[in-house]
Amino acid sequence: ERVLVKETISEAVGRLKSALADLGLPAEPTPVGSAVRDTWLPGKADIDIFLLFPLDYPSDELGPATLAAAERAFGAYKLRYASHPYAVVELNGFEIDVVPAYRISNYTELRSPVDRTPLHNRFLLERLNDRMRSEIRLLKAFLRGIGAYGAELAVGGFSGYLAELLILKYGSFLDLVKSASAWRPPVSFTLEGEPPDWVAESESPLIFVDPVDPRRNVASAVTETQLNRFRSACSAFLKQPSREFFTEKTLPPVSRQELARMLKDRGTTLLLVLYEGLAEPPDTLWSQAISGAFRLKRALEEAGFNPLQAEGWTDETSRIALVLEVERAVLPVVEKRVGPEVGGPGEAGFLKKHLGARDTLGGPFIEGSRWVAFKARRLTSLRDVVEELTSGVESILPKLLRGSEPRILLQDDSDFPGWDDLLPFLGEFLRRRRDFFAERLVPPED
Amino acid sequence: ERVLVKETISEAVGRLKSALADLGLPAEPTPVGSAVRDTWLPGKADIDIFLLFPLDYPSDELGPATLAAAERAFGAYKLRYASHPYAVVELNGFEIDVVPAYRISNYTELRSPVDRTPLHNRFLLERLNDRMRSEIRLLKAFLRGIGAYGAELAVGGFSGYLAELLILKYGSFLDLVKSASAWRPPVSFTLEGEPPDWVAESESPLIFVDPVDPRRNVASAVTETQLNRFRSACSAFLKQPSREFFTEKTLPPVSRQELARMLKDRGTTLLLVLYEGLAEPPDTLWSQAISGAFRLKRALEEAGFNPLQAEGWTDETSRIALVLEVERAVLPVVEKRVGPEVGGPGEAGFLKKHLGARDTLGGPFIEGSRWVAFKARRLTSLRDVVEELTSGVESILPKLLRGSEPRILLQDDSDFPGWDDLLPFLGEFLRRRRDFFAERLVPPED
Repeated sequence: ERVLVKETISEAVGRLKSALADLGLPAEPTPVGSAVRDTWLPGKADIDIFLLFPLDYPSDELGPATLAAAERAFGAYKLRYASHPYAVVELNGFEIDVVPAYRISNYTELRSPVDRTPLHNRFLLERLNDRMRSEIRLLKAFLRGIGAYGAELAVGGFSGYLAELLILKYGSFLDLVKSASAWRPPVSFTLEGEPPDWVAESESPLIFVDPVDPRRNVASAVTETQLNRFRSACSAFLKQPSREFFTEKTLPPVSRQELARMLKDRGTTLLLVLYEGLAEPPDTLWSQAISGAFRLKRALEEAGFNPLQAEGWTDETSRIALVLEVERAVLPVVEKRVGPEVGGPGEAGFLKKHLGARDTLGGPFIEGSRWVAFKARRLTSLRDVVEELTSGVESILPKLLRGSEPRILLQDDSDFPGWDDLLPFLGEFLRRRRDFFAERLVPPED
Repeated sequence: ERVLVKETISEAVGRLKSALADLGLPAEPTPVGSAVRDTWLPGKADIDIFLLFPLDYPSDELGPATLAAAERAFGAYKLRYASHPYAVVELNGFEIDVVPAYRISNYTELRSPVDRTPLHNRFLLERLNDRMRSEIRLLKAFLRGIGAYGAELAVGGFSGYLAELLILKYGSFLDLVKSASAWRPPVSFTLEGEPPDWVAESESPLIFVDPVDPRRNVASAVTETQLNRFRSACSAFLKQPSREFFTEKTLPPVSRQELARMLKDRGTTLLLVLYEGLAEPPDTLWSQAISGAFRLKRALEEAGFNPLQAEGWTDETSRIALVLEVERAVLPVVEKRVGPEVGGPGEAGFLKKHLGARDTLGGPFIEGSRWVAFKARRLTSLRDVVEELTSGVESILPKLLRGSEPRILLQDDSDFPGWDDLLPFLGEFLRRRRDFFAERLVPPED
C-alpha cells in the first residue's frame, strides 16, 4: 500500500504541475497530510495536495483556479467547500483533495485556517523519524480502537495532527500512555516553552498549543468525554494490555423488530425529530444536529419528561435527525410551580399572575421560604410539547433548524423510524457501546 | 363565658384542695394557662390545674398521687401521659387537666419540662395588664386566622405563651405586626438583655429566649413555613387590613366522588400508607406521621416517582396515614445510573458491579467525567416500591412504623381511601388552602 500511495502522490503532483503551467497559474502543488508523512493507518490513507499561491494572488480567484487545474489534470472532479472551494478527484482508486491555499512562512501571514496545513506538514516532516512514524501509527490505531480518533464533531476526538504532536512530545506511544494515565483534566501542553496567556483562561479540558501557531489549541475538538475515555483507556492498557485496544469496534446492525423489542424491554419512549432538505456542508449539519439534540434535551428536562439521552445524526448531505430517549411520554396535568421568596422581589408579580387564574389548581401558598402554586399544564403529551418547541421562529433550536417544520416520530408510529439509513445509528444509540476496556480496570479475582 | 371559667377554676381548686388534704398529700393545686391569665380565645379556654409537690417528693409517686386526688375530687377521670401520668376530668362542661409538677423557684431546680409551666404562669401574671390581655387575644385570633396558631407538630406554629411574650415585648398587636412585616429570618429575641451563646448556633428560623429559662427557645416549634406565613400576613394586613385575618378558616368537606374528580383533573396519583393499632400519645403519633411522610417522600424522590407533596395524619389515638401525591405510578425499566469519576475512588467497584451484570442494559461507558451505566429496575410500580420501602425492620420509616405491615392504597383501589375520617384531611391536602392574604399583597389595579 505504501508504494502505491507514494506513486499516486507523485503522479498527481506531476499532473497538477503541468496543468498549472499550461494554465499559467503561479501555484506550487504541495502534498501534505499523513500520506506524505507516512503516518496513516492501513487502508485509511487520505491524500491531500495543496496548491500554494503567492500572497498577492486574489483571494476570490483561488477556488476557480484550483478547479480549473484539477479539471485539466484529472478530467472529472467533485466540488467541495472549506475556506475556499476545492476539488476532490480520483486516481488509482484513491480520493485526492486538491485544495488552494496561500504560501506563507509563518502564522503571522495567515489568511485563513487552511493556510496553516502546509506549515504543519513542513514542521512535522522536519522532525519525524521512522521510529516515531511507527509510534504515531500505533497511537492512531489505539485512538481508533477506543473510538476517540477524529476531530470531527460526530466524534469529538483526537486529530491525526494532535496524535503526531503527542508522539513528538512524549517520544513513544508507551511513554505517552504512562503519562496520560495520570492526567487530571484540565491538562495543557506546549511542545516546548511556556504556554501563552490564553491557556489559563481556556475552558477546554485538553490544550495542546500549536507549535506553528501559538494562538491555536490543536486539541480544541477533544470533548471531556473523549479525553476521559483516552486517559481511562491508557490506565486500562497499562493494567492489562491487549491487541483489543488496536482493533476497530463495530456493532452488528439491528432490524426494526430488534429495535422495537429493545424499546419494549427498556420501557422508555424513543423520540425522533426529522429534518429534510437542508443543503449544507457536513460540518454544519453535524453541528446543528448535535446542538439541536442538546437543546431539545435540556428543554424536555425543564418540561419534566426526564430525557435519558440525546444525540444528533445527519446523512451529511441534507437530512438531520434529533434522537432522544425519554422516560415519560405523558405528564400529569398538575405542576408544582415554586415561586419567589416570601417578601422578596417578584412576589407581587407571582401572586397577581396565579391568584384566581383559570389554570391555578391550588395556592398560592407559602412552603418554607417561598410562594408555591399548583398549576395546570397547557400541554401534557410529549408530541405536543415537542411540536411547540420545534415550531416557529422562536423555537429553542439552532438557526438552521428554526422555521422548518420537522417530522416528529415516536416508536409506536407506523412510519417509525422514518429513514432506513437511520437504523444503524439507533441501534448504537440504544445499545450504547460499553467502553470495552472497562473490564481491564477491575483487578482480577484472587 | 369568662365568669363561668373563673367559677369553674375556683370550684375545681377547692375540690382538689380537700381531696389532697383527705389523702394527706403535700401538694398545692395551682391553676395555670390562658384561662387564669384571661388571654384565651372565645370558646377555646383550656383549664390546667397543676398540683405542685415539694422537691423531696418521690418522682415515681407524682402520677399515682395526682390520679388519686383527681378521682377523689371528680370521680371519673381519663388517664394521659406527659412528663408524668396525669388526669383529665370534666366540670361544668369544661375539660380540666390535673397535672403533677414540682414546686420550684427558678429553672435551675427544673426536674422535667412540665415544672416550667407554673413559672411561666407566675411570670406573666406579674406583668400583664388588661390592655395587654386584649392585645394578646387579638394576636391569637390573628394567628389562628392565618393557620399559624399552635405549637403542636401538626401546626408547627406559635404557642399561646409565645404570643403572650411577643405582646410583652412589643407592647401592642399593631407594633408587633409592623415589626414582623420587616423581619428577615432567622430572627431572635430576648425579652430583655443579651441573647445567650447558644442562640448564634441555633438553626431555628425564630428564636425567643424563655425569660424564665434562658436555655430554652419558646419558638422552637415554629417552622420556616409558619414564620414566613406570619410575617407575610403581617405585611398583607398593613397593606389592606380586614376582619378576615381574625376569622378561622374552614374548607367545606369533600365527598369521595369529589375527591375522585379532583384527582382525575390533576392527572396525579394519590398514595395512602395506613397504619393501625399504634397505641401512643398524640404527640408521638403526629411526629411519627409527619416524619414518616417526609421520609417516604424523599425515598420516592430518589426512586424517581416525582412526589409533589406529602403529609402525615393521625386520629391521635391509634392510626396514622402517610398521604402522598406523586406524578407517576409506573417507572420505565431502564434507569440511568451515574457512577464515580473516571479514575476516581470507587471506579473499580462500580465497574465490577455493573460489567456484564444481568440487570445492566448498557455500558458502563464514559460520559463527561463520569462512568455511567443503564440498569434495569427490579421494581417499577409505585405499589411494589412502597411495599418494599415500608416493610421489614430495615425500612426507611421512623421507629414506630417499622416492622408493622401497612395497608397501601392508591386512588383506583376499591377500598380507597380506607378510613372515612381521613376524607376531610384529603380534601384539604388536595385543595391546598390558598393563603387567603396573598391577594392583599398585590397592589390594586389603577
